[in-house]
Amino acid sequence: MNVNTHLQQMKSGYLFTEIVNRTKAYQEEHPDAEILRLGVGDITRPLPAPIVEAMHRAVEEMGQPDTFRGYGLENGYAWLRQAILDNEYTPRGIDLTLDEVFISDGAGSDLGNLSELFDVRNTVAVLDPSYPAYEDTTLMAGRPIVFLPCTVENNFVPELPKVRVDIIYLCYPNNPLGTVLTREQMAQWVRYARENKSIIIFDAAYEAFIQSPDIPHSIYEIPGAKEVAIEVCSYSKSAGFTGVRCGYTVVPKATGLQAMWLRRQCTKYNGTSYISQRGAMAAYTPEGKAAIRTNITYYQQTAQLLLNGLRQLGYEAYGGVHAPYIWCRVPQGYTSWSFFDLLLDRCQVVCTPGAGFGPSGEGYVRFSAFSKREDCIEALERMEQL
Amino acid sequence: MNVNTHLQQMKSGYLFTEIVNRTKAYQEEHPDAEILRLGVGDITRPLPAPIVEAMHRAVEEMGQPDTFRGYGLENGYAWLRQAILDNEYTPRGIDLTLDEVFISDGAGSDLGNLSELFDVRNTVAVLDPSYPAYEDTTLMAGRPIVFLPCTVENNFVPELPKVRVDIIYLCYPNNPLGTVLTREQMAQWVRYARENKSIIIFDAAYEAFIQSPDIPHSIYEIPGAKEVAIEVCSYSKSAGFTGVRCGYTVVPKATGLQAMWLRRQCTKYNGTSYISQRGAMAAYTPEGKAAIRTNITYYQQTAQLLLNGLRQLGYEAYGGVHAPYIWCRVPQGYTSWSFFDLLLDRCQVVCTPGAGFGPSGEGYVRFSAFSKREDCIEALERMEQL
Repeated sequence: MNVNTHLQQMKSGYLFTEIVNRTKAYQEEHPDAEILRLGVGDITRPLPAPIVEAMHRAVEEMGQPDTFRGYGLENGYAWLRQAILDNEYTPRGIDLTLDEVFISDGAGSDLGNLSELFDVRNTVAVLDPSYPAYEDTTLMAGRPIVFLPCTVENNFVPELPKVRVDIIYLCYPNNPLGTVLTREQMAQWVRYARENKSIIIFDAAYEAFIQSPDIPHSIYEIPGAKEVAIEVCSYSKSAGFTGVRCGYTVVPKATGLQAMWLRRQCTKYNGTSYISQRGAMAAYTPEGKAAIRTNITYYQQTAQLLLNGLRQLGYEAYGGVHAPYIWCRVPQGYTSWSFFDLLLDRCQVVCTPGAGFGPSGEGYVRFSAFSKREDCIEALERMEQL
Repeated sequence: MNVNTHLQQMKSGYLFTEIVNRTKAYQEEHPDAEILRLGVGDITRPLPAPIVEAMHRAVEEMGQPDTFRGYGLENGYAWLRQAILDNEYTPRGIDLTLDEVFISDGAGSDLGNLSELFDVRNTVAVLDPSYPAYEDTTLMAGRPIVFLPCTVENNFVPELPKVRVDIIYLCYPNNPLGTVLTREQMAQWVRYARENKSIIIFDAAYEAFIQSPDIPHSIYEIPGAKEVAIEVCSYSKSAGFTGVRCGYTVVPKATGLQAMWLRRQCTKYNGTSYISQRGAMAAYTPEGKAAIRTNITYYQQTAQLLLNGLRQLGYEAYGGVHAPYIWCRVPQGYTSWSFFDLLLDRCQVVCTPGAGFGPSGEGYVRFSAFSKREDCIEALERMEQL
């Protein structure tokens, strides 16, 4: 047997694992330190009551002979896919069919597994900085990669690739930058993809944070996008499902990829937990929607507080309006990892080093507004001392 | 963008989807027909009460600020991995470490995704007949495939490959044959893999059905297997988790693949539902174990009833002792799909056509003892009329 050398040769230390390890080592050396975690993008507020109640009912059903559910469809229960169309797409004038929506255990799996649809020689464009999984998935398959720098010079808006690329990962609202694309900026990408016969894998995990009616929530709001875009969506950051595991991906038939993705999922995936799907369904009830909105508003206010606080301390800080992330320049003389170590050592504050998101992330760190409000306030106070 | 032509060229109609479609078409034409489903290997008994209670508690925790859980480790909570070692491996004298156990959303995902560990030029051996995902996963990656026929002539025991192969999928107790391997037969495969530097992907989804102390439950009961085998396990067929989604896979460090699998999972998987993991944990309590044993015994008795019933009707039937499946020869003049259609049309009984499991499955159908007991009795009565 020969191993996949692309996978074997990857440098170890997935960004968030490395942060966990450094934080753990610090805590072990300083058992009394009260560490404030503003790093990993994990939500902190509990699940809304309507979702908890729906999952209790689902658990109860699973214990009764008449209501027990075994395998569901690999692409998810039709009632959840219908609710997604009715709530996420139809109101925005986007016309999709039930079989173009695929329920999964989360955006993380789909963003990785979708790459199986494509030839291994395809060239991939990845924003720099970006969520590490896009680059890592590309490297594991041995595909050539093109980085699209997002820097203060281009106002953190990536330029179209100068060479032709086959696959483009876009994430808006952006992680880690906290930026969004205007309708016209997004339309440029759709035009590029149509002209170059490229496919856009659009990560919409943070769409619930958009605060302006001018910013598209879905790439399918752009005419012509259905032929060239796959959209990956998540309940993790909206309904708080990071530990529940449920998301969905839209693969329009117009891409020519819907049947292939169905075949892939029917072979290598056995469907999403019935309990998780019932939880997701409750996100579309009036009570569920209201509770989720309350949580999002809370995180948005935390983001505002962090953004203002960092700026008052003299930091150059970006994002944090239509996204839960603040992208913050580190003081002169520091790298993003040395500033991470400084904050951990002197303030017991954990952030995310920008360099972990790509070369253009060097010189920045990311703060997450998913953190507890009181931790953010405390972190700003400690940083003021620094 | 170019598509993965291996995936694109695959014939459509995953076996179980095709069965569902034919059954649905029949039901629509005959709305009053009471169809008895002895086909798909899905369990029918509800979740045991101790598992239901544990999942209720987990759901409750998720709704409270102090006990809410977000992202877990990609390879699962340590308490579940420890319980797996303590209950499944240590009592059998198998020494593994916590980081060699990976919790997942089920064996289906792992059996598909594990293929990413290997070079695409590796040759793969697949039992014929077998669970379709092994072959389909291999074809999707464009790997050469060698079939190992299991026929009445070789007593349904596959011979070692005549050419060298890199990867070997073994499933014991076997789906669809219902057969097991003796310790010595399993040891032959471990020797083969060691001599040929091959890797065995051992699907142990049905180990709970083994009734004889002589039959190994885990391939690691064979000395030397840790260097050459990955073991994929499931709660689906033991604890009834087909709709809950939780399983685990053992990748020993001695295979040289453990770090690669961890890297893959940390990139393309975001961990298993906390609620599902709590459910799996309850499978190891004394109450959970007792309830699961009751269910397994029930299915074993159903298998016995089906096996005896089919033989009394004059069918050549195999398996059904250490496995929930009966492998049954179709009457002369029929193919496995024409016999499927006959049973559906004349008896309103759904079985699984053997040809769907590979060329050597032609001439056979599979009956599943996961079906309701009364459905099996009724099916045998209708078949007697036939």
